Amino acid sequence: MADQDAQFPVGDAVSSLPSLRWDEPPEGPVLVLLDQTRLPAEEVELVCTDVPALVLAIQTLAVRGAPLLGIAGAYGVALAAVRGYDVAEASALLERARPTAVNLGYGVRRAVGAYRAALAQGADQERAAAAALAAARELHREDAEASGRMAVHGLALLDELLPGGGHRILTHCNTGALVSGGEGTAFAVALRAHRAGRLRRLWVDETRPLLQGARLTAYEAARAGMPYSVLTDSAAGSLFAAGEVDAVLIGADRIAADGSVANKVGSYPLAVLARYHHVPFVVVAPVTTVDLATSDGAAIEVEQRPGQEVTEFTPPQVPAAGAEAGAMPVAPLGSQAYNPAFDVTPPDLVTAIVTEEGVVSPVTGGGLAELCARSRQVTIG
Amino acid sequence: MADQDAQFPVGDAVSSLPSLRWDEPPEGPVLVLLDQTRLPAEEVELVCTDVPALVLAIQTLAVRGAPLLGIAGAYGVALAAVRGYDVAEASALLERARPTAVNLGYGVRRAVGAYRAALAQGADQERAAAAALAAARELHREDAEASGRMAVHGLALLDELLPGGGHRILTHCNTGALVSGGEGTAFAVALRAHRAGRLRRLWVDETRPLLQGARLTAYEAARAGMPYSVLTDSAAGSLFAAGEVDAVLIGADRIAADGSVANKVGSYPLAVLARYHHVPFVVVAPVTTVDLATSDGAAIEVEQRPGQEVTEFTPPQVPAAGAEAGAMPVAPLGSQAYNPAFDVTPPDLVTAIVTEEGVVSPVTGGGLAELCARSRQVTIG
Repeated sequence: MADQDAQFPVGDAVSSLPSLRWDEPPEGPVLVLLDQTRLPAEEVELVCTDVPALVLAIQTLAVRGAPLLGIAGAYGVALAAVRGYDVAEASALLERARPTAVNLGYGVRRAVGAYRAALAQGADQERAAAAALAAARELHREDAEASGRMAVHGLALLDELLPGGGHRILTHCNTGALVSGGEGTAFAVALRAHRAGRLRRLWVDETRPLLQGARLTAYEAARAGMPYSVLTDSAAGSLFAAGEVDAVLIGADRIAADGSVANKVGSYPLAVLARYHHVPFVVVAPVTTVDLATSDGAAIEVEQRPGQEVTEFTPPQVPAAGAEAGAMPVAPLGSQAYNPAFDVTPPDLVTAIVTEEGVVSPVTGGGLAELCARSRQVTIG
Repeated sequence: MADQDAQFPVGDAVSSLPSLRWDEPPEGPVLVLLDQTRLPAEEVELVCTDVPALVLAIQTLAVRGAPLLGIAGAYGVALAAVRGYDVAEASALLERARPTAVNLGYGVRRAVGAYRAALAQGADQERAAAAALAAARELHREDAEASGRMAVHGLALLDELLPGGGHRILTHCNTGALVSGGEGTAFAVALRAHRAGRLRRLWVDETRPLLQGARLTAYEAARAGMPYSVLTDSAAGSLFAAGEVDAVLIGADRIAADGSVANKVGSYPLAVLARYHHVPFVVVAPVTTVDLATSDGAAIEVEQRPGQEVTEFTPPQVPAAGAEAGAMPVAPLGSQAYNPAFDVTPPDLVTAIVTEEGVVSPVTGGGLAELCARSRQVTIG
């Protein structure tokens, strides 16, 4: 747990957004995480010198987002190996940190696999540790590259759908560098449009109940100098009615074999509004999000989250405000709440699915299966 | 300002919800308001012994809601008259308290008119004051009666649209006793369904950004013992998709001559979702809401509210938490926000408009004009 509390404010001099980085100061290698629980109020880095510190960071959501958790897990194994801790014990701790995060387990197993393969081939402890670190770096790089390819494919699609540029893109939840080894999924497309001078406005849904849009996407957009505006999720209707949205871009938590898209709650109403107003609705996600074992939308189990996320308000964690700055009740005590974590958009409402391997449009089971067959890595596991 | 700070917690013994009441304790007549800024955390009554105290209550939103403000204004005039203050000065103060609240001015003018008419007919000060009080009570009673008639017409319509009862009603914002001299508009219909044993569930949109649903509608539903659940506004999509909504019931801020309905932002997306899922979308509002001088939806000016309502979170005002419990930033400082106060639903998405004078369905300009012609009191002013 050493150095879990060491905090280095990140100044304006930092030009890129290091949501996670491996560092090797003289005192020994560390994994440095941007503490997402404090965004956007403060940019604070957590320095993990051992796996228990990383596990705590994962459990407190200081580091979050499916692809990023996989990368963090792989680096965690490398950290244990390089520092000479028990790798098997470290892996078990990491895999249990968030049992439902499939990517986390994937990242851990990939680094452990490289470590064990090196040992089996006669490597010493130091070279085996180097193999684990190389595996983590490879996963990190692969994810960043996938991000870049999604951005290229996504912007090409936007330019095709909406010739002339000046895109006004509506997005939901957080899909940028904070959840990725690269620049993210849907957000990466908007960022590429911005860099190409073709983003007129990024409309950022605040994304209740946890406000990932207002807190994290707005933070990333501000950092990148993008023209953006935050809005309540239901104010999107007014934007559509006023003709102020050219395309909706969202990520995905899981895509079923028929093309049904499970994503943060609030995505489906945007799909219905987009259809009603003849606006393209585009999903951007890596191929690993496609789950061919899930036949269709009805087969996707929708996780119900605690009602308190709706009936109480928890401000972004600012230590300066003191420990008493906890959850505040909004609704009457004892109120029931309906709080699904995500919703499911049927394929007929999705204009296109953009992946690092290319674009599927129209969205059909056949098109998705073909894309997956082209990809070397269909599912994580 | 005497007694502005006198607070009497309302215990469980109170069976009805006195959002506003005239009282005559031995110390002299007072206007007693339920302080809506403290709901649902605390039920606190504000006792106004003079008009400046009432003006402060109006400006701090302790009392709010179009019809209720009209009633409060009329009682304010009566209070000044009965206590022997300058009625002209009191009226001017009240009318200026919230310049955009047309109902407030209407209530004030109605009580002042009664007061002056009595004086002109030779009444002494005491009898003229009694006339002002009678006018306030008449307005109060009229509004309560209109509420009751809307509830009757609304439930009859629901039973016709959805034979068999067991209604699952989705509502938005706050439309109950807290905004009315009676039991409100859309909420009154749900309440009548509940009393008749025909409400299976009231789905309460939290209604960002000011959370009137989670704070006030949930409070009223809990008080009435109704089966209700709070949800984020965009979780409504999942409910529609799951077939869990039988009808949407909302109020209205203004209805244009063509039947376009301006209401709290988030109403229009519900109308689009309702249409997509073949669910009735019903507007409940008194005839005074119909503004024949506004030709259509495009002629309705949409008020843009301060962005801080979206980018910051302000908890319900709980004095125990101390004065420092103010607004907390959620989005990065300097974030732009798009924050329209309401949106406009075109008449073709509205299944019916329910008023105290009857139901208009289908919603057409002709149908509305006919209804208004039947009503004695078409517009407030």
